[in-house]
Amino acid sequence: MSSFWNNRITFSIFGESHGPAIGIVIDNLPPGEYIDKEKLLQFMARRAPRKDGTTTPRGEKDLPEIMSGVLNDRTTGAPLCAMIQNTDTRSKDYSDLARLPRPGHADYTGAMRYQGFNDVRGGGHFSGRLTAPLCFAGAVCGQILERRGIYTGAHIASIHGIKDSMFSPTQVTKADLLAVREKAFPVIDDVQGEAMRADILKAREGGESLGGIIECAAVNVPAGIGSPMFEGLENSMAQLIFGIPAVKGLEFGAGFKVAEMVGSQDNDTFYIDESGHVKTRTNNHGGILGGISSGMPITLNVAIKPTASISKPQETVDFRAKTNEILQIKGRHDPCIVARAVPCVEAAVNIALLSHMMNYPHF
Amino acid sequence: MSSFWNNRITFSIFGESHGPAIGIVIDNLPPGEYIDKEKLLQFMARRAPRKDGTTTPRGEKDLPEIMSGVLNDRTTGAPLCAMIQNTDTRSKDYSDLARLPRPGHADYTGAMRYQGFNDVRGGGHFSGRLTAPLCFAGAVCGQILERRGIYTGAHIASIHGIKDSMFSPTQVTKADLLAVREKAFPVIDDVQGEAMRADILKAREGGESLGGIIECAAVNVPAGIGSPMFEGLENSMAQLIFGIPAVKGLEFGAGFKVAEMVGSQDNDTFYIDESGHVKTRTNNHGGILGGISSGMPITLNVAIKPTASISKPQETVDFRAKTNEILQIKGRHDPCIVARAVPCVEAAVNIALLSHMMNYPHF
Amino acid sequence: MSSFWNNRITFSIFGESHGPAIGIVIDNLPPGEYIDKEKLLQFMARRAPRKDGTTTPRGEKDLPEIMSGVLNDRTTGAPLCAMIQNTDTRSKDYSDLARLPRPGHADYTGAMRYQGFNDVRGGGHFSGRLTAPLCFAGAVCGQILERRGIYTGAHIASIHGIKDSMFSPTQVTKADLLAVREKAFPVIDDVQGEAMRADILKAREGGESLGGIIECAAVNVPAGIGSPMFEGLENSMAQLIFGIPAVKGLEFGAGFKVAEMVGSQDNDTFYIDESGHVKTRTNNHGGILGGISSGMPITLNVAIKPTASISKPQETVDFRAKTNEILQIKGRHDPCIVARAVPCVEAAVNIALLSHMMNYPHF
Amino acid sequence: MSSFWNNRITFSIFGESHGPAIGIVIDNLPPGEYIDKEKLLQFMARRAPRKDGTTTPRGEKDLPEIMSGVLNDRTTGAPLCAMIQNTDTRSKDYSDLARLPRPGHADYTGAMRYQGFNDVRGGGHFSGRLTAPLCFAGAVCGQILERRGIYTGAHIASIHGIKDSMFSPTQVTKADLLAVREKAFPVIDDVQGEAMRADILKAREGGESLGGIIECAAVNVPAGIGSPMFEGLENSMAQLIFGIPAVKGLEFGAGFKVAEMVGSQDNDTFYIDESGHVKTRTNNHGGILGGISSGMPITLNVAIKPTASISKPQETVDFRAKTNEILQIKGRHDPCIVARAVPCVEAAVNIALLSHMMNYPHF
Repeated sequence: MSSFWNNRITFSIFGESHGPAIGIVIDNLPPGEYIDKEKLLQFMARRAPRKDGTTTPRGEKDLPEIMSGVLNDRTTGAPLCAMIQNTDTRSKDYSDLARLPRPGHADYTGAMRYQGFNDVRGGGHFSGRLTAPLCFAGAVCGQILERRGIYTGAHIASIHGIKDSMFSPTQVTKADLLAVREKAFPVIDDVQGEAMRADILKAREGGESLGGIIECAAVNVPAGIGSPMFEGLENSMAQLIFGIPAVKGLEFGAGFKVAEMVGSQDNDTFYIDESGHVKTRTNNHGGILGGISSGMPITLNVAIKPTASISKPQETVDFRAKTNEILQIKGRHDPCIVARAVPCVEAAVNIALLSHMMNYPHF
Repeated sequence: MSSFWNNRITFSIFGESHGPAIGIVIDNLPPGEYIDKEKLLQFMARRAPRKDGTTTPRGEKDLPEIMSGVLNDRTTGAPLCAMIQNTDTRSKDYSDLARLPRPGHADYTGAMRYQGFNDVRGGGHFSGRLTAPLCFAGAVCGQILERRGIYTGAHIASIHGIKDSMFSPTQVTKADLLAVREKAFPVIDDVQGEAMRADILKAREGGESLGGIIECAAVNVPAGIGSPMFEGLENSMAQLIFGIPAVKGLEFGAGFKVAEMVGSQDNDTFYIDESGHVKTRTNNHGGILGGISSGMPITLNVAIKPTASISKPQETVDFRAKTNEILQIKGRHDPCIVARAVPCVEAAVNIALLSHMMNYPHF
Repeated sequence: MSSFWNNRITFSIFGESHGPAIGIVIDNLPPGEYIDKEKLLQFMARRAPRKDGTTTPRGEKDLPEIMSGVLNDRTTGAPLCAMIQNTDTRSKDYSDLARLPRPGHADYTGAMRYQGFNDVRGGGHFSGRLTAPLCFAGAVCGQILERRGIYTGAHIASIHGIKDSMFSPTQVTKADLLAVREKAFPVIDDVQGEAMRADILKAREGGESLGGIIECAAVNVPAGIGSPMFEGLENSMAQLIFGIPAVKGLEFGAGFKVAEMVGSQDNDTFYIDESGHVKTRTNNHGGILGGISSGMPITLNVAIKPTASISKPQETVDFRAKTNEILQIKGRHDPCIVARAVPCVEAAVNIALLSHMMNYPHF
Repeated sequence: MSSFWNNRITFSIFGESHGPAIGIVIDNLPPGEYIDKEKLLQFMARRAPRKDGTTTPRGEKDLPEIMSGVLNDRTTGAPLCAMIQNTDTRSKDYSDLARLPRPGHADYTGAMRYQGFNDVRGGGHFSGRLTAPLCFAGAVCGQILERRGIYTGAHIASIHGIKDSMFSPTQVTKADLLAVREKAFPVIDDVQGEAMRADILKAREGGESLGGIIECAAVNVPAGIGSPMFEGLENSMAQLIFGIPAVKGLEFGAGFKVAEMVGSQDNDTFYIDESGHVKTRTNNHGGILGGISSGMPITLNVAIKPTASISKPQETVDFRAKTNEILQIKGRHDPCIVARAVPCVEAAVNIALLSHMMNYPHF
């Protein structure tokens, strides 16, 4: 098992960066759900390279073709397969990889795992390109959730130390989430966004790359969604989010900050709001207690490392010849993938939420 | 699905804090593995309450009784069931919980999820007590791993801002891990440990509780263990670790620090060491690239929130009557569970590692 | 993975014939379901040995003790663990098994699979005794189904060629199912039942054993339950039923008879009955088309081989010494386990049905 | 979950009869395995329609296109996706199905399950056409097994009561299996095969269809493959085989005949053969005891119902209008699919065997 996920929603992602196509099979979607293709493409476009120099110039359209599971724009209940042709591949850029693993990439570990038979061209199945099918699934699940009032959104919380504003943990609204979704560079505070972009362009010029943090929130999730222990909302989201290449950390609610708090600070006390709903005054728990939603906004932060491909020369090894070598990576690369990872995190959250939602009579 | 985990090692945890017993069924352990019961009890004793005032005075022996799957101290290959009797339960301490959910606990979310039928006594199935069976499984898996040279260890990296020394990301050894395991209060730097303990006792006196961070490392994991995307080492560890109550964050290697790095800092360059092994000069990747082990130490940090049960009065609601209320929690509680969570994190890492190790011909 | 089943209902069976206890953990039962313990014990008593000489004289009470997941006789939603103590074990009866595998048993294959570490006493984890936890789960699921109007029943369709009457494939009713359930020897036609019992006693006297066929039916299953391909009702039932030791064949509806039919005979034509319901005039499809229930009775037959333990001397081998040997099995054995397997088949059908029922909004 | 199977080998089948394509994603294949495309197409050709009038005239080439997971004709270890374009679809033949369900098909049950959103054209996802991806997977797994000496083969054991010879349960060889594989009409006794074909042509002329039985065997499976209870060889094969449309029965070894045997007849006594191997003198157990292979040939029989599509007028209902109707099915249909189902059964057995083989150190 590797690239499939088995929950109420089950999916299997396939493909390599330089193979004929990548794609996904999603099983167990509820039948009769309308798929708005325009919105679906908008979602996926948020993952596509930008033309402003902050991303790779690789210019694929990445139009998913639905091969099954949808009829007259509605899910049939049968497995939904979507395929994306690989068109703009230039394999010779990667010819040395089988010998000289790129630092920060899975070239070496993949070779060890698959005894040298793995496809190394463009990272093969380890390529960030494989997040396109994840976004497809996340977009489909998102439409089904939105039809039930649940909205998810994410933004760049920081890049290389430059910080965006944050969602209000208790007050974030659907409007806040939609506002940031529409932006080409998904930040709340555009002034900070400009500073981030300038920093990215500078890194690119220096042959460098940058990392950052993504904040994601989901609103209107009813209380009571999830399960204790190993099948809770956090567990499912974690399993998916750590499947996005470059993710090195994940925290819910106050996250690592809880380590410096005392109990009375961290505990989110309950109250009845003016409409008679149970709420908490703070939201350090990030909307999840015991793996189960509390009805408060679900909030999480994800740490994304700097793109491993940089054009600066780097030390590496020829792991077959057992010699130390110098590697200079050529080809087209993202100086920062944080912006493109934003919809991927949303997608993972959508899939986990829909999976858990489907376990309930209220769905 | 809630309290079971399905990988090469499959297990199912059962029980409630105040029911007759808690336990675990572990399926698919390799046959013929010797179970050293003394070492197993030592592992579990590290999770047990201390007598120094830093933990709950609830004084259960927590001796696991093996009901199946072991004959003449060796695994038979059949499912291994271990059971722990609950002996020291005093249910009347918890009589108001069904009406007045404790802030920071799963009382409210559990009631929503299970339509009020969940057992609230002592947190029921959400109780931290359910980590005892997890430790049992982790101890068993750890013995099997150690027989193959793989060692795991963890310590309190910080409590309430008081910081311990950290493992060397590249040089941590089996000896380092064993040294900290033997301590009643698992820190590397005992001076800092004393400061932490003093802080915990102070919090207890003030009716408060404290959180902290746990660092865990595993050494001698061969390169090539794991899988890409959703079944990688990080994903499996994350799924288990977020099943430990009170965990709010998880990071591998440099974790959230990657967000402030540039690519050439974060990338761990490869070299051939004096014995001809492939190594990396730094270990920001925490021993895992693309979900697969690199042969470097696996390192991770886990954020633990302050114990939710505090004796200070707190605001809450009667969620049936829809009224605001004040709750004062009585009973015996841990002012800080970080020390007791240390073996739980180790256990989760052991289980994930053994599960992935079993996928390989070299096992 | 071996003794666990992972569907909407997940369970894990543990224990060995001569270990301290056997049992089961059932996860994901719906919360709030009343467990009628009297009815539960009645169900399990149908699997217990009889006192009329047709079964083993091993006389265990097999009272399941519920360790978790039930409070005030209702399911809490947390994993339900039930344990049955082994009390009447006499291990020395089985002392040669590690060397001399019993024909028809899993002694040899188990030793190969588990490299000789398996517990051979009384068949260990391969013992028919492990169907007691299956019956427990089936009894619980059956109560939940009956609360929704769905009833399952089974009877001995034949033993050693002596045939019982069969359920009407299209007209079988809840009353028919309940009538046969109440009988100590579950046949429709008691005259045939007497002939079967006489034949069993005769076999016992001759040191022999007998096999037979069990017919099972479920009524009032709504149309639309199940899934295509590998997660259909037939697939799930098959996966469970082939887990009952001694099962060698399974057929749904007309089963193997379809091989001699032409299409117009086999096809079950649809009609609207007087109450406006869609029905079929015949039921060769056994209530399942494309893995999904049609609303007609679900019918299936299961072939049970003669008990492998017979007292006649048999050829076998010492598979370590590689010599041919003669084995005479001592100890207490069932001359025929068909009657005791009847509730096991019902149990498997109940579990599969409830698992699939829980996928539907109508549940 | 519906069309995916999750074991050591995991796969997900997608597509509808009249959609753009059908296909499969297979995950966790061992890396470095050579895929002989010629042999693969030969395997799939055995499932394709014949030109002799015994099958549908639908004339698709069914060439699978490998989209991922294979490089230089070897498995990479990444998910293998194969796609088959649908080219010869004529959807208007099926225009009434949404109203008038065809007897013996899943039109009605699918509509109930998917609330009328299922694709009914050509049976949609329920179409027998979906066995083409299953055969693809089975052909790939078969090549991997054959490289380890394990061979699988199947033949038509009977059609409409006309019986072929059977494999010898104890002596069947690789040569026997290969001999029948090469035949266009897979029977051992060609004279009986001619009689079957004549009977099929006669049925076709009369607007009828025929069913039959398939016998399958696997040789050289080492002893010790499989697991007890619910993850045994029989369980896994059953779960897959009941996923082939039209299968109504399955038996292993002596199957339903055990019901008429006494224990000393049914028990397969062990002996040491001249090469020192443990064998059984008879093979009523079909090579599987306790879910685990014994080293004897694995044998099984599968009952296939007559093709549900017949051209004779049939009673049905308009299940929306609740009226009784007469349906005459037009279009191209197989008068008998038994011959085409032969490789499907082999495929299922191959997949199950490889999955279980991969659990063992000896693989």
